[in-house]
Amino acid sequence: MKPRKDLLDIQSLTDEELDFILTNAVPFKSLFKRSVKKVPTLRGRTVLTLFYEPSTRTLSSFEIAANRLSADVNNFSVGTSSVVKGESVLDTVATLEAMRTDYIVVRHSTSGIPNLIAKNTTASVINAGDGFHAHPTQALLDLFTMKEVFGGDVRGARIAFVGDIQHSRVARSTNLLCRRLGMHTAMLAPGSLIPRDTPPEIKVVSDWESLFDWKPDIIYLLRVQMERQNVPFFPSINEYHRTYGLTDERLKRVRDAGTWVMHPGPVNRGVELTDNVMTYERCLIDQQVENGIAVRMSVLYWLKPGTIEHPTT
Amino acid sequence: MKPRKDLLDIQSLTDEELDFILTNAVPFKSLFKRSVKKVPTLRGRTVLTLFYEPSTRTLSSFEIAANRLSADVNNFSVGTSSVVKGESVLDTVATLEAMRTDYIVVRHSTSGIPNLIAKNTTASVINAGDGFHAHPTQALLDLFTMKEVFGGDVRGARIAFVGDIQHSRVARSTNLLCRRLGMHTAMLAPGSLIPRDTPPEIKVVSDWESLFDWKPDIIYLLRVQMERQNVPFFPSINEYHRTYGLTDERLKRVRDAGTWVMHPGPVNRGVELTDNVMTYERCLIDQQVENGIAVRMSVLYWLKPGTIEHPTT
Amino acid sequence: MKPRKDLLDIQSLTDEELDFILTNAVPFKSLFKRSVKKVPTLRGRTVLTLFYEPSTRTLSSFEIAANRLSADVNNFSVGTSSVVKGESVLDTVATLEAMRTDYIVVRHSTSGIPNLIAKNTTASVINAGDGFHAHPTQALLDLFTMKEVFGGDVRGARIAFVGDIQHSRVARSTNLLCRRLGMHTAMLAPGSLIPRDTPPEIKVVSDWESLFDWKPDIIYLLRVQMERQNVPFFPSINEYHRTYGLTDERLKRVRDAGTWVMHPGPVNRGVELTDNVMTYERCLIDQQVENGIAVRMSVLYWLKPGTIEHPTT
Repeated sequence: MKPRKDLLDIQSLTDEELDFILTNAVPFKSLFKRSVKKVPTLRGRTVLTLFYEPSTRTLSSFEIAANRLSADVNNFSVGTSSVVKGESVLDTVATLEAMRTDYIVVRHSTSGIPNLIAKNTTASVINAGDGFHAHPTQALLDLFTMKEVFGGDVRGARIAFVGDIQHSRVARSTNLLCRRLGMHTAMLAPGSLIPRDTPPEIKVVSDWESLFDWKPDIIYLLRVQMERQNVPFFPSINEYHRTYGLTDERLKRVRDAGTWVMHPGPVNRGVELTDNVMTYERCLIDQQVENGIAVRMSVLYWLKPGTIEHPTT
Repeated sequence: MKPRKDLLDIQSLTDEELDFILTNAVPFKSLFKRSVKKVPTLRGRTVLTLFYEPSTRTLSSFEIAANRLSADVNNFSVGTSSVVKGESVLDTVATLEAMRTDYIVVRHSTSGIPNLIAKNTTASVINAGDGFHAHPTQALLDLFTMKEVFGGDVRGARIAFVGDIQHSRVARSTNLLCRRLGMHTAMLAPGSLIPRDTPPEIKVVSDWESLFDWKPDIIYLLRVQMERQNVPFFPSINEYHRTYGLTDERLKRVRDAGTWVMHPGPVNRGVELTDNVMTYERCLIDQQVENGIAVRMSVLYWLKPGTIEHPTT
Repeated sequence: MKPRKDLLDIQSLTDEELDFILTNAVPFKSLFKRSVKKVPTLRGRTVLTLFYEPSTRTLSSFEIAANRLSADVNNFSVGTSSVVKGESVLDTVATLEAMRTDYIVVRHSTSGIPNLIAKNTTASVINAGDGFHAHPTQALLDLFTMKEVFGGDVRGARIAFVGDIQHSRVARSTNLLCRRLGMHTAMLAPGSLIPRDTPPEIKVVSDWESLFDWKPDIIYLLRVQMERQNVPFFPSINEYHRTYGLTDERLKRVRDAGTWVMHPGPVNRGVELTDNVMTYERCLIDQQVENGIAVRMSVLYWLKPGTIEHPTT
């Protein structure tokens, strides 16, 4: 396996790399049951987080992943930073590069910024979400979770994405990975929010009834990005819930069919889902969060493995 | 001693537990005089701080306490977090639980939130202040400080709380603990700010003259919570200072009587106290801060001790 | 060499101390090429950062420096802190002192605040920039960078500062250190922004033509502090760029002469300099950033060396 510098999207991962990341996440996850949840693998390495969009969950997940590998984490705080002073992204990256950081974990509202950064630094860049483009660690943790549920082999399993597909980097990245691994995928969304370039092998439906007819094994609810003002695409929150939400009534059918439910978090109760989904026994939301740390540890471990010395502890 | 998961209030502590916490804070405090102020006790454990109310002092105190036990600390930043996106407290807690954090240190403006959280996580929850309800680590550090001053035995000592008793979680928690340990307690406050359920054994006075007559060993000044807008309870800041503040004139009598002065910090100079109190030789404010770290180390050490492995350094 | 508590300015450093700091920065910098960039020198020490003015770059530089020496860093966050509650600087310092922190790294918009703090704490205080007064670690990293460029000996080298000299603590500190080490210094600035007490040995010029005539080896561009509203001193941003900026045309002459370019960062492209400066082969901006971490490690190591125990790894 050739050493790699960055994780920018899912497409560029080889099968071998994909397998390496998912396989190594298993022992990292098993650490979490021990009281000492830490290994010395990345001792003395520096991880710099550069979040231009707020996201406590993803940020904390990366922080904890880095801590559990004994790396040091510094948050290059954009709120109180030079960015406020008008410094451009590339000047910031030149600064981080000069600080000899080993990793830059970046989130930005504009697609392609992580790629731009990666080209301008020798540090390993991990895309933690860019615009509507990609969110590769989310796709990896989603797939890791599905593999746990289906006993390792997801080939032939059926997953349906529900909500604003058009503006969701999660749908984009995860959907891509699912199809690559031989899963069947469907989409339930208003016609205006189905991407125009949707390939014909993806089933597109316009209501829950048709979705149930398709017999999904997993329903993946997308988040309504209230803060990105995509609410206007829907008449109202109530209308969204009634038309696309996993309501109590639909949950009954989901439960009867033994369907799994996923969501990237954080959820909007009463919008994408009813309260009762949170306690549904096949709801995988919390498992996704836990796996997120294990998978991110695995990604940190995978990047630049050639430079990793034997742990001394 | 039965293993315990949470520290939510003072009432539920057994005498044995109380003694354990206060006794173990002593060696932790002695660490602070060494250049290496750190022990490996909690290496590999994760402490997550969840502060819905700002408090740099308490937050830093917990951070430093955790660091000195070699635990990793992550601040789940509420300002830039999913909370902004409307995620409910319990969904946040489900996320933290899934992250396999060992401790959640929570501060919230609503009473009972830490209890709610504790019921919904296997992590150890420490209440760092909730509404007008409780602030147990403050009470423990206050008592630890009094024990230092009185040579270990506080029984029979006389402490008077001054200020807005009604809205003070500090007064509530510390007062409770003082009485439990056999101290005599008094209150000086406007009638409207004396809780209605004040038990008869607590002396209530309405002016400093009566307070001096009661001969307190310790005067505990409460903070005027300007940011919680309880100022309206008083005609004006000047009026508060004149009526309830420890003025220069009153400080003279305090000094003559050898009375100790405490305050939970941060102080409002010119409101609760005159500048000269800060340099008064029996002012315990800084000692309270130092003891806060030692006591919080002791609380972290006490919780879930059964899971603590032998340190490997 | 007598042990020292604080680094508040450049003037009070002895030649021996200056030499110690600059010499020890060399091995610290060499660490950055290793995958484990960390030494156990300050394990168990606590560094508290107290930034009343935002500065992500300087803050991160100190954080990374402390991490690479294995110290714990806590940010005493002023934004969400007791400072908001009106606590005075000295009360904050009393709190930090009581927390037994080993170092306080302070930045404040008012000159003299670090000195005031240093007098009121036993912790080592490092001035990370105060008002228009001083920025000693900037001066040290600037000099370290010049020594690298000139092969160790800067005596006789010619440096010209360009921009708002009057309001620049960088110009003040770095200029002072340059002259002390036998360099020739010049200033290019509008007459109103040349300090009145400028000594006669500093060459003052009013345009780039005269500056080029002076034949500088280094041009040190000062930052236009847009956030401190010193823009009004100039008619407009465009006017500033045209009159005092390093434009493409001037860059050509700089390149022909082989002149080095420095800037404390973050740069304002199109104001102090044209984009092409950033890729100019003798632009030292990134090297300054890298050296900043090495020099700050050296400063942390130098202060209170008497209390440093033998590292145990």
